Amino acid sequence: MANDPKVTSVEPLPASEAKWIEFQKISWTDQTGKPRIWESASRKTRGKSGVDAVAISTIIRHPSRPPSTIIILQYRPPVAAVCVEFPAGLVDEKESCEDASLRELHEETGYRGKMKFISPTIVSDPGMSTANMQLATIEVELKEGDPVPEQALDDGEFIERVVVPIEELYERLMQYSEEGKLVDARLFHYAAGLHMAKTVL
Amino acid sequence: MANDPKVTSVEPLPASEAKWIEFQKISWTDQTGKPRIWESASRKTRGKSGVDAVAISTIIRHPSRPPSTIIILQYRPPVAAVCVEFPAGLVDEKESCEDASLRELHEETGYRGKMKFISPTIVSDPGMSTANMQLATIEVELKEGDPVPEQALDDGEFIERVVVPIEELYERLMQYSEEGKLVDARLFHYAAGLHMAKTVL
Repeated sequence: MANDPKVTSVEPLPASEAKWIEFQKISWTDQTGKPRIWESASRKTRGKSGVDAVAISTIIRHPSRPPSTIIILQYRPPVAAVCVEFPAGLVDEKESCEDASLRELHEETGYRGKMKFISPTIVSDPGMSTANMQLATIEVELKEGDPVPEQALDDGEFIERVVVPIEELYERLMQYSEEGKLVDARLFHYAAGLHMAKTVL
Repeated sequence: MANDPKVTSVEPLPASEAKWIEFQKISWTDQTGKPRIWESASRKTRGKSGVDAVAISTIIRHPSRPPSTIIILQYRPPVAAVCVEFPAGLVDEKESCEDASLRELHEETGYRGKMKFISPTIVSDPGMSTANMQLATIEVELKEGDPVPEQALDDGEFIERVVVPIEELYERLMQYSEEGKLVDARLFHYAAGLHMAKTVL
């Protein structure tokens, strides 16, 4: 990366100026019939799929290397740090979540693969926002000597990709954390599940 | 549950009325030195720990039952549905994340356990919000015949707890999804990691 990205100022954002997100005042009645209010944030970009975003758990299979996955590193202004995440992105207006997953994996990592499974719609932080997503599992089959493909990033996108043996994912995330990078909670939970399987089951 | 909770209306929330969340306009410079703007949502409740929330991955050990975990079901107004999540909650103003985890596990499930591990700070949805959290792993040792403990819920909290063998977590979440409940993305990723360990490694 040429320069280190950095946050220069943080100001309150009036609702009328917000282009990408909005606030909602939700009136609801609870289990006793009592009327209550909940405050929530929402993305304005949700399209026909009804799903805001996708993330991709890749399985790279290679004749002489252990099954691996791909994680990405990118600077995230809301947390003012480099974050470690699964490849991911917003679903376009008329796109299916499957197509968005295959597209985002290709753009962010260069790899093309086969959709093995896509999760039901899951919710990213349901106490605070309406944000939802689907998690795709995409398999990439490599042959001995296949070259590392080129990323297809948009102008202004700076994303580093890292191929990690699935067996080593948890340790690798702990290491990134120690270096001051911030691991995405969903990716961390995935690795914690892998680690749990290894240590408890 | 006595009545089914439900959302009755959703309106735009002016920033000046919001008590729990706020919007931020973040000015930052990218890798080429170009000044840019990012919009983000933020909780107003973050205390001294610097961490908004904790979630708990419980391991229940019992002499004659398989290692199990606890998940909770509760209605979440932002997504107008019953969500399936790890026990979780906000960290109080002067509380440590360890104390918050032990407290929330007890309140939401009735169980008391021993802190085995707490994750580094991880970020819940870093493209959209500043929200962060830590994931605690708490071990609960049960003896044969131990009674099921009482929850210690606040007035107005309606939380159902379910003990699930860790081996069956992934299938159980898929089943809840089919029934129309919404699984939290972090819990789903955890189960997907468990499932990946079983099917790929």
